[in-house]
Amino acid sequence: MMEQAQLSTEMAGKVITCQAAIAWTANAPLSIEEVKVDPPKAGEVRIKILSSGLCGTDLHILEGKLRVPFPMILGHEGAGIVESTGDSVTSVKPGDKVLMFPLPECRECSSCLHPKGNLCLKENVLSPNGLMLDGTSRFTCRGKKIYHLYGTSTFTEYTVVHEIAVGKIDAAAPMDKVCIMSCEVPTGFGAVFNTAKVTPGSTCVVFGLGGIGSAVVMACKASGASRIIGVDVNEEKFPRARALGVTDCLNPRKLKKPVQQVVVEMTGFGVDFAFEAVGLIDTMVASLESCHLSYGGVCVIIGAAPSDSQLSFDPMLILAGRTLKGGILGKYKTRDSIPKLVTDYLQKKINIDPLITHKLPFERINEAFELLQGGKCIRCVLSF
Amino acid sequence: MMEQAQLSTEMAGKVITCQAAIAWTANAPLSIEEVKVDPPKAGEVRIKILSSGLCGTDLHILEGKLRVPFPMILGHEGAGIVESTGDSVTSVKPGDKVLMFPLPECRECSSCLHPKGNLCLKENVLSPNGLMLDGTSRFTCRGKKIYHLYGTSTFTEYTVVHEIAVGKIDAAAPMDKVCIMSCEVPTGFGAVFNTAKVTPGSTCVVFGLGGIGSAVVMACKASGASRIIGVDVNEEKFPRARALGVTDCLNPRKLKKPVQQVVVEMTGFGVDFAFEAVGLIDTMVASLESCHLSYGGVCVIIGAAPSDSQLSFDPMLILAGRTLKGGILGKYKTRDSIPKLVTDYLQKKINIDPLITHKLPFERINEAFELLQGGKCIRCVLSF
Ligand SMILES: NC(=O)c1ccc[n+]([C@@H]2O[C@H](COP(=O)([O-])OP(=O)(O)OC[C@H]3O[C@@H](n4cnc5c(N)ncnc54)[C@H](O)[C@@H]3O)[C@@H](O)[C@H]2O)c1
Ligand SMILES: NC(=O)c1ccc[n+]([C@@H]2O[C@H](COP(=O)([O-])OP(=O)(O)OC[C@H]3O[C@@H](n4cnc5c(N)ncnc54)[C@H](O)[C@@H]3O)[C@@H](O)[C@H]2O)c1
Ligand SMILES: [Zn+2]
Ligand SMILES: [Zn+2]
Ligand SMILES: [Zn+2]
Ligand SMILES: [Zn+2]
Repeated sequence: MMEQAQLSTEMAGKVITCQAAIAWTANAPLSIEEVKVDPPKAGEVRIKILSSGLCGTDLHILEGKLRVPFPMILGHEGAGIVESTGDSVTSVKPGDKVLMFPLPECRECSSCLHPKGNLCLKENVLSPNGLMLDGTSRFTCRGKKIYHLYGTSTFTEYTVVHEIAVGKIDAAAPMDKVCIMSCEVPTGFGAVFNTAKVTPGSTCVVFGLGGIGSAVVMACKASGASRIIGVDVNEEKFPRARALGVTDCLNPRKLKKPVQQVVVEMTGFGVDFAFEAVGLIDTMVASLESCHLSYGGVCVIIGAAPSDSQLSFDPMLILAGRTLKGGILGKYKTRDSIPKLVTDYLQKKINIDPLITHKLPFERINEAFELLQGGKCIRCVLSF
Repeated sequence: MMEQAQLSTEMAGKVITCQAAIAWTANAPLSIEEVKVDPPKAGEVRIKILSSGLCGTDLHILEGKLRVPFPMILGHEGAGIVESTGDSVTSVKPGDKVLMFPLPECRECSSCLHPKGNLCLKENVLSPNGLMLDGTSRFTCRGKKIYHLYGTSTFTEYTVVHEIAVGKIDAAAPMDKVCIMSCEVPTGFGAVFNTAKVTPGSTCVVFGLGGIGSAVVMACKASGASRIIGVDVNEEKFPRARALGVTDCLNPRKLKKPVQQVVVEMTGFGVDFAFEAVGLIDTMVASLESCHLSYGGVCVIIGAAPSDSQLSFDPMLILAGRTLKGGILGKYKTRDSIPKLVTDYLQKKINIDPLITHKLPFERINEAFELLQGGKCIRCVLSF
């Protein structure tokens, strides 16, 4: 830590040259190259990344399913140490251990001020422009401007993040674990605790048993759900899902009827709570149709569908009494809540360890993407 | 009442011949003809209709927008007196004043048993088959079987309704008023009190200022909404809407931008609660887009879209944090709740009078449909 603080003083205010994984375009491997990282401007924080998770959203982007400007440095599940801060930054200082959030919390906009709002209006996570809040970038590679992802960009040794998206965490936090608390953990837990509010004894179905789906399963189990049906096309996900709490596993490709029909038949008239953690229109509709038609059957959309796609269904599904909800990052106010979740983890009030199955050094990031794309991991964490 | 009881005894168990308005087909005037009304079978109740409202749903059906089997006797907002009862009927007896509900409450199915469920699974209101629960009809006209609507059919001097859709009401109830408590009042009030749960100080938008929309406005006002934006293409609806509580009236046809954009601009970032009481896909999407994108902006679908239409929108609208909900008959459990609402009305705890603007004798039913179709009335009640 001492060493870190010294390092900071030396580099503060200067451009840092370091290694980063550049996505020059979609549908191509990342290329690890030297980038120049500008010093933080007013309100910004430059962070040395220690670890980063690799989320299904990063994969969607690399597969060209979610529209972002290229070239870009991807990654949004980062944990690191503050290297230096720009003017007027008060909430963190060099040497602090921090998480950086794909969703900021400015504490000033109408979302942030509302007790239930979390989609801070300062950053457009729904259609990212790849720039810092002042409309510029802090990354250059081979003389070209490189875009930021959700104001975070964690697949780099150093990044610059606005203070409103940085949360100071406990100095004792194991950085190779807590990085997934920047997205995977709050997204899955919050979908259950904040958005759906799963009740004891209820029936649930979870579409997609990857990273987010696994976190959803853990939270449904913790909420006392009596039955948790897990749906995935990759049966390799089933043993682990069962260990986390799934009571019944369904592979839609092996069923003779649409999976939603099977779920409805299994549960009488549909589940109390359905979660979509895949990111496909078909599974969104299947989730909605899996809900009990009347008594507040609640469907929570977590997955990010491809850009420009339309969710299309018979409005009678809603008129009957179902509820369709969604939320980014599990509706948590990021800076207020996530550092507390880290403390809860350190105090063993919550467990996140089963959500990480692989670790690789940053240099092997393309292998990590292959693991995720091939359905071989839940989360693979990169260490820097 | 004495007279009525005597009459009942004479006719009980016999076929009644009386006048009914037959919809032989969609898109044609109703034809008032002599029908034979069979005696009630086990569990059923034969009712002499005293008054009936005429709902937007009846109009949709007559316009061919909602698929039902023809020929049919329409009408589902009825108030009447029990003429006779079939075997095993225990909850009402001849001479009782009753309402009949388009949604039954069997108190046995998974919806009825659930504290929040109201879409009784005994009757498929979402795609009506036009028959009594035993799969047959009680109406014949010119030797032909005539279908029932939602197990009610109130545009007739006598009808047969299953006991699970009949609610005994206070003997003092003014029948030419309380008939609208079979649908209009609970649908509008319940959308606000049960489904959306509008909070004091909140902002609301109501699409459609007809019968249902007017009830929604009254309930938003009673809930303490600070701003109620009313949207209708028929400006004749505006003065009355303002009198009920609408603070701002918008006619989408006179705006230069999409109405949802205007609502979002008027309110900063969108309303807390949006209600769709028109029955068109476009207004459903506009309602959803009018909600604040993040903090639990709740859109309640009340309108019935044309059969086979698809509600289609960018799933990001939900992912951002909006909620899309719906409910039939305002999510009230009909038999449990609606007779109590009648008592509340008699005790002046709630007011429904502004929701009726016209009265006509049953024989002039086609004029009543013209009033509704032409946007000239809120509710026109038929007296028998
Ligand atoms: N709302 C948010 O804030 C938020 C945050 C993070 C991730 N996400 C989204 O959540 C989704 C899941 O992310 P993840 O990190 O868990 O990804 P993941 O790749 O780990 O998991 C996706 C899972 O879905 C399964 N799957 C694929 N097609 C399927 C189908 N047709 N039916 C059933 N299962 C199928 C895959 O086999 C895999 O197990 C993505 O769309 C991601 O963009 C949203
Ligand atoms: N969910 C339920 O249980 C339930 C119960 C009753 C009625 N409904 C439905 O509610 C809807 C309204 O019924 P109602 O009885 O109030 O009908 P109504 O005819 O009295 O009211 C409809 C209103 O919508 C207005 N309108 C038409 N097109 C419009 C547009 N493009 N934008 C804005 N306003 C527009 C009309 O001018 C009219 O004022 C219907 O679809 C009906 O089927 C649902
Ligand atoms: Zn993520
Ligand atoms: Zn904010
Ligand atoms: Zn109605
Ligand atoms: Zn029932």
